[in-house]
Amino acid sequence: MARIAVGIEYDGTAYAGWQSQPAAPSIQQVTERALARIAAGPVALVCAGRTDAGVHALGQVAHFDTAAERALRSWVLGANSELPADVCLTWARAVPEHFHARFSAEGRTYRYLVLNRAARPALNANRVAWIHRPLDESAMNLAAAHLTGEHDFSAFRAAECQAKSPVRRLTRLAVERRGDWLVIEAQANAFLHHMVRNLVGLLIHVGRGDAAPAWAAEVLAGRDRTRAPATAPAAGLYFAGVRYAEAFGLPSQAPEGGAPGRSAMIDGL
Amino acid sequence: MARIAVGIEYDGTAYAGWQSQPAAPSIQQVTERALARIAAGPVALVCAGRTDAGVHALGQVAHFDTAAERALRSWVLGANSELPADVCLTWARAVPEHFHARFSAEGRTYRYLVLNRAARPALNANRVAWIHRPLDESAMNLAAAHLTGEHDFSAFRAAECQAKSPVRRLTRLAVERRGDWLVIEAQANAFLHHMVRNLVGLLIHVGRGDAAPAWAAEVLAGRDRTRAPATAPAAGLYFAGVRYAEAFGLPSQAPEGGAPGRSAMIDGL
Repeated sequence: MARIAVGIEYDGTAYAGWQSQPAAPSIQQVTERALARIAAGPVALVCAGRTDAGVHALGQVAHFDTAAERALRSWVLGANSELPADVCLTWARAVPEHFHARFSAEGRTYRYLVLNRAARPALNANRVAWIHRPLDESAMNLAAAHLTGEHDFSAFRAAECQAKSPVRRLTRLAVERRGDWLVIEAQANAFLHHMVRNLVGLLIHVGRGDAAPAWAAEVLAGRDRTRAPATAPAAGLYFAGVRYAEAFGLPSQAPEGGAPGRSAMIDGL
Repeated sequence: MARIAVGIEYDGTAYAGWQSQPAAPSIQQVTERALARIAAGPVALVCAGRTDAGVHALGQVAHFDTAAERALRSWVLGANSELPADVCLTWARAVPEHFHARFSAEGRTYRYLVLNRAARPALNANRVAWIHRPLDESAMNLAAAHLTGEHDFSAFRAAECQAKSPVRRLTRLAVERRGDWLVIEAQANAFLHHMVRNLVGLLIHVGRGDAAPAWAAEVLAGRDRTRAPATAPAAGLYFAGVRYAEAFGLPSQAPEGGAPGRSAMIDGL
């Protein structure tokens, strides 16, 4: 048996999310099915971060074990010829048995795209959140500064979240304006369920002027999801990348602290 | 009667192009129909540049005449509530009678997006051209330098082109790499039919190493379309903007010579 890690890009619009669901097609399901055709046997994928319905990925990472011997290139090209047009593998690497896409991950990067103008989007309609009221990105960055660091993020955690601890280390939360667009980047060791979309919901609330930036600290300290603003829509969210120990030799997905302008996110949109 | 100019953004994937066709839906058709609902009477649009099937626009401009008196904001919001999700108006302005979306245009900007990596695109599958062989953007820029200026562009003109003269002033043709992405920007007073896609076709040919950069000068001088490389796919092409005399007071679409990184193109993708 060999363990293989793969990079996966997808447009999540048409899917129920990463995880296999009885009713709706999932990214996991279509990818496992494509890889099974190449392996000529069943394939079970474990991913770095399960994304919700409608959430996209530029740098999802998953691993699987297989007895099938294939060139790494064949896993990618073979699977891509079997996958639907909105999902593809970007790379494949052999990894040691102790590599685990989820548990070996040391950091995760999400990016969130907001189109901030009067007219709704025509290009990218399902790939951004549209906010027609002008957003003040300086106020949003002031609010973001209250949220970075190691905290109990219960205020930003979905009711259904199954994580044992609500403590996460948010290493970066930054808003950058480019004309009518805002790019919000969030990096942490790991995220709670809906945490990025809930953080973005608060930033948008502050950006609209509905609360002062310092209110972010209050919401965080309150640890009460019911006091925080609405969850931001799935369509604007991209799982940008995962950081692993360099020894694994995996392609770098989204260098931490890298300027978003040079990152896979904007390059990929 | 008043003359109104509008900015239009669209994802061209599902359309036969700008122009009304008997068989397939066109951008012109759906936009005229939406505006007619707001005007409560027929509307006929004249655009700055007719785009082909599958070509997108961030900054198409069109004008129409109407006896209906509506707030400018109402044209935009009203039409956008009638238009399909992949087409929208971005602005509306009252213009004098002598304004003509096509004949008053002093410059047009197109951008062309290439994804240059082994894996096909999953996000943006219909919105980029995918070239898996590595492209040398330095060679492409050397080739581009042979093509800028005022020339007879017969070598880059579709057989069906109806323009009286094949002479155009190409003020900018530049290739910029951002990771796996190439952004090619073309600016001219006007373009011949298929001219941008034929210029890009040559640049890709050179970028692959199939010809030296200086060959671009030979192709141009030959004025023979049959000696030039294949037309690049429609999916990668975006009509980015139109420049008019400042006196018309229209929103600037794509400042000439502006860094693509700050432009509507990348901001919009």
